[in-house]
Amino acid sequence: MAKEKKLVEQITSMEEDFAQWYTDVCKKAGLCDYSSVRGFMVIKPYGYAIWENIQAELNRRFKKVGVQNVQMPMLIPESLLQKESDHVEGFAPEVAWVTQGGLEKLPERLCVRPTSETLFCDFYSRDIHSYRDLPRIYNQWCSVVRWEKETRPFLRTREFLWQEGHTAHATAQEAEERTQMMLHLYADFLEQVLAIPVVKGRKTDKEKFAGAEATYTVESMMRDGKALQSGTSHNFGDGFARAFNVTYTDKDNSLKYVYQTSWGITTRIIGALIMVHGDDSGLVLPPRIAPTQVMVIPIAAHKPGVTEKAEEIKNTLSQKFSTEIDETDKAPGFKFAEEEMRGIPVRVEVGPKDIEAGQAVIVRRDTREKIYSPIDALSENVEKTLEQMQQDMYDRAKKFMEDHTYVATSYEEFKDTIATKPGFVKAMWCGDPACEEKIKAETTATSRCMPFAQEHLSDTCVCCGRKAKAMVYWGKAY
Amino acid sequence: MAKEKKLVEQITSMEEDFAQWYTDVCKKAGLCDYSSVRGFMVIKPYGYAIWENIQAELNRRFKKVGVQNVQMPMLIPESLLQKESDHVEGFAPEVAWVTQGGLEKLPERLCVRPTSETLFCDFYSRDIHSYRDLPRIYNQWCSVVRWEKETRPFLRTREFLWQEGHTAHATAQEAEERTQMMLHLYADFLEQVLAIPVVKGRKTDKEKFAGAEATYTVESMMRDGKALQSGTSHNFGDGFARAFNVTYTDKDNSLKYVYQTSWGITTRIIGALIMVHGDDSGLVLPPRIAPTQVMVIPIAAHKPGVTEKAEEIKNTLSQKFSTEIDETDKAPGFKFAEEEMRGIPVRVEVGPKDIEAGQAVIVRRDTREKIYSPIDALSENVEKTLEQMQQDMYDRAKKFMEDHTYVATSYEEFKDTIATKPGFVKAMWCGDPACEEKIKAETTATSRCMPFAQEHLSDTCVCCGRKAKAMVYWGKAY
Repeated sequence: MAKEKKLVEQITSMEEDFAQWYTDVCKKAGLCDYSSVRGFMVIKPYGYAIWENIQAELNRRFKKVGVQNVQMPMLIPESLLQKESDHVEGFAPEVAWVTQGGLEKLPERLCVRPTSETLFCDFYSRDIHSYRDLPRIYNQWCSVVRWEKETRPFLRTREFLWQEGHTAHATAQEAEERTQMMLHLYADFLEQVLAIPVVKGRKTDKEKFAGAEATYTVESMMRDGKALQSGTSHNFGDGFARAFNVTYTDKDNSLKYVYQTSWGITTRIIGALIMVHGDDSGLVLPPRIAPTQVMVIPIAAHKPGVTEKAEEIKNTLSQKFSTEIDETDKAPGFKFAEEEMRGIPVRVEVGPKDIEAGQAVIVRRDTREKIYSPIDALSENVEKTLEQMQQDMYDRAKKFMEDHTYVATSYEEFKDTIATKPGFVKAMWCGDPACEEKIKAETTATSRCMPFAQEHLSDTCVCCGRKAKAMVYWGKAY
Repeated sequence: MAKEKKLVEQITSMEEDFAQWYTDVCKKAGLCDYSSVRGFMVIKPYGYAIWENIQAELNRRFKKVGVQNVQMPMLIPESLLQKESDHVEGFAPEVAWVTQGGLEKLPERLCVRPTSETLFCDFYSRDIHSYRDLPRIYNQWCSVVRWEKETRPFLRTREFLWQEGHTAHATAQEAEERTQMMLHLYADFLEQVLAIPVVKGRKTDKEKFAGAEATYTVESMMRDGKALQSGTSHNFGDGFARAFNVTYTDKDNSLKYVYQTSWGITTRIIGALIMVHGDDSGLVLPPRIAPTQVMVIPIAAHKPGVTEKAEEIKNTLSQKFSTEIDETDKAPGFKFAEEEMRGIPVRVEVGPKDIEAGQAVIVRRDTREKIYSPIDALSENVEKTLEQMQQDMYDRAKKFMEDHTYVATSYEEFKDTIATKPGFVKAMWCGDPACEEKIKAETTATSRCMPFAQEHLSDTCVCCGRKAKAMVYWGKAY
């Protein structure tokens, strides 16, 4: 048992040091690694396989709502970035600038895209002519660069992968509907596939996207009680269209500005997967997103018939699930520790005694529950187990979020809760950014969102005591 | 018929101006567009859908030979790029340099990756320890930047999309096997899926990749007789490993350098698809790669029952093929011209008389052949038609390549053939780069490859008359 103990001991426990636990899981589960380029990471095969599954699942959902994938340039001329004033103000301080191409200094510097609103607008200004060209529902999968000072794997890196959808519509109403449609799509994806419960709502003006009229967000809660913004959807109104002159000729022959939206989910969602579901043995992946759903482990493989039976089981299960078999000469306990570190939803153990009894053992990653199943019924029982696990993971995360969501009706109560209880605090707000600033300065908590599901907790702002306008979720955030 | 004629008239004919025909097809088929960023293009939904199909098909084939996808940083520190001398010499003159990050000037400039050998080597130098860690068969899908002076859509742009595989092996032999395995995989993909016949061979030292010991290539012939390098695979020996100190501890406890390969296919293959199969009506897509395989077009849709029957056919065919229906109010002839421009392999026409006769008309894009099929047997007949078309497209392109491949045994004959006959010239070569230089300077033809299928055409070099060492394919190239 020495070896597998050692493997497990290499992870710091969540309780001891959550940040270190997170970094340990990233590395030991083989998700990513540091690179020699400061602030940039390498996404290793296992981490990238999760991202590919996320891509496939989102693409499937995107396609149902008319999204088409495209590819825009990676670089943006400075003059283009500057066209929309709020937008440039938000992004200019954190972009990387290309100043030389080949052996020549460029006449105009180009930034590596931090996001591509400007490129899409520039393209749409030439591509859209008539109402017949609308709507345009385009999306691209790419990487973007933002020159962050402090970085953490997946959560904050100078380069990250994402999808960014950019749409153009004939009317303000259609743009608003698309903005909310995509937010609900994200929420559904997070809850149904990643088993991550979310709070859906609208960002305050202070927290909204640079250039947006409205930003909607799905916020999720990590196991340390901190919030992670897990997907955002922005309604730009006609602001960008006016800045970039994106117009169309309507049925009545008049020239009109289009209304635009954008929305995105990034590789930081892998950070959320780790921090919502992981435990002190490593990663725990929801079955619907796991690159490997089942790991077959032969016990006492040197005994006659074991390897054959294990391989037979592997082949049978492969027809329905993404299945691997560990036939290395490591000790079973070591193999268990390894596949637990990687968060593989279920393992199937089969040894000489099992074979004699015509059974195998299914072990759930999240609860360690052992389910004895006739080998003949293994496929059905693995399926049931995976479905149950998916549901239980969501329910558990949902309960955790509810248990760690508090109400504060006075500022003293608010400060005390933020200081002593990890989680979200629901409290009323007057709508004044000054109160947001004060709360952030004094407690480090930020407004996460004004949830769609508003509640009336009290009449007055928790900070200043003036008349309240909205209930806000507050929390410390990644 | 005025409208559809107009649509077709918008394309220049191949014979009149092949380059303009190419650009016209790119734009009119909706594959790509220019952007405001000089030398960079926008890949539009239809072009990107072809790329996604290429990705899916290659990923499927990659998986079978143990390839794992990863993601490396987009930027490379100058010091890292400089570690392998041939490599930096090859790429430094054509990279884009990031010199500022956020508001600060960078202490060391970073180039946007033109290719990622250096990043993979740097990573492998930390990631590989023991013989147990080998082989590493990693690949990434990404975009790269090379500061080209003259650009053309898909064929040569400052940014292009590609996959780049990078492997590390314990032995030189294994590296050589992998290099050739991937070349054959590319050849098979090009021939079986894209219906593009290829010549497989090895590049001369002059034409090989910067830093490689050997470069293998698949060369294909465009309809104007020019060559297009359609995929390459490089064997680096242990050159990069020595420069980057990528070592492993072997079974005997000795420290050894790894042997490495890299291989890639880019979006320029979409250029090949256009130029191998296209005609004066636009694109012609091989059924196995077409985003839309079947377009259903109702004729006289206002007549009772037509729309319903067309939709029924669309739904039936959708179960087996990627099928669309054009229910716009455009005239049928206009619709035909549109779907022909997009190269959709077959269209299915159905009108009142067809319905009465219980039939529909299948029209092949490549030959315009009309196949009358009972509606009940439409699915089988469409399948047969698509299969036949895929095979015919390959056979036609193969015959074209063979018909435009010439032999030259004297320099006069060589020069005359290159000057007057578009296509490849097979000729013997002494192995001296000086002859290659002379041929290029005097004829603009370059050595495409020394084919695996060597022939003995004569005893002497076509250029200098000295003893010949190899047969070479020569041609003008994209």
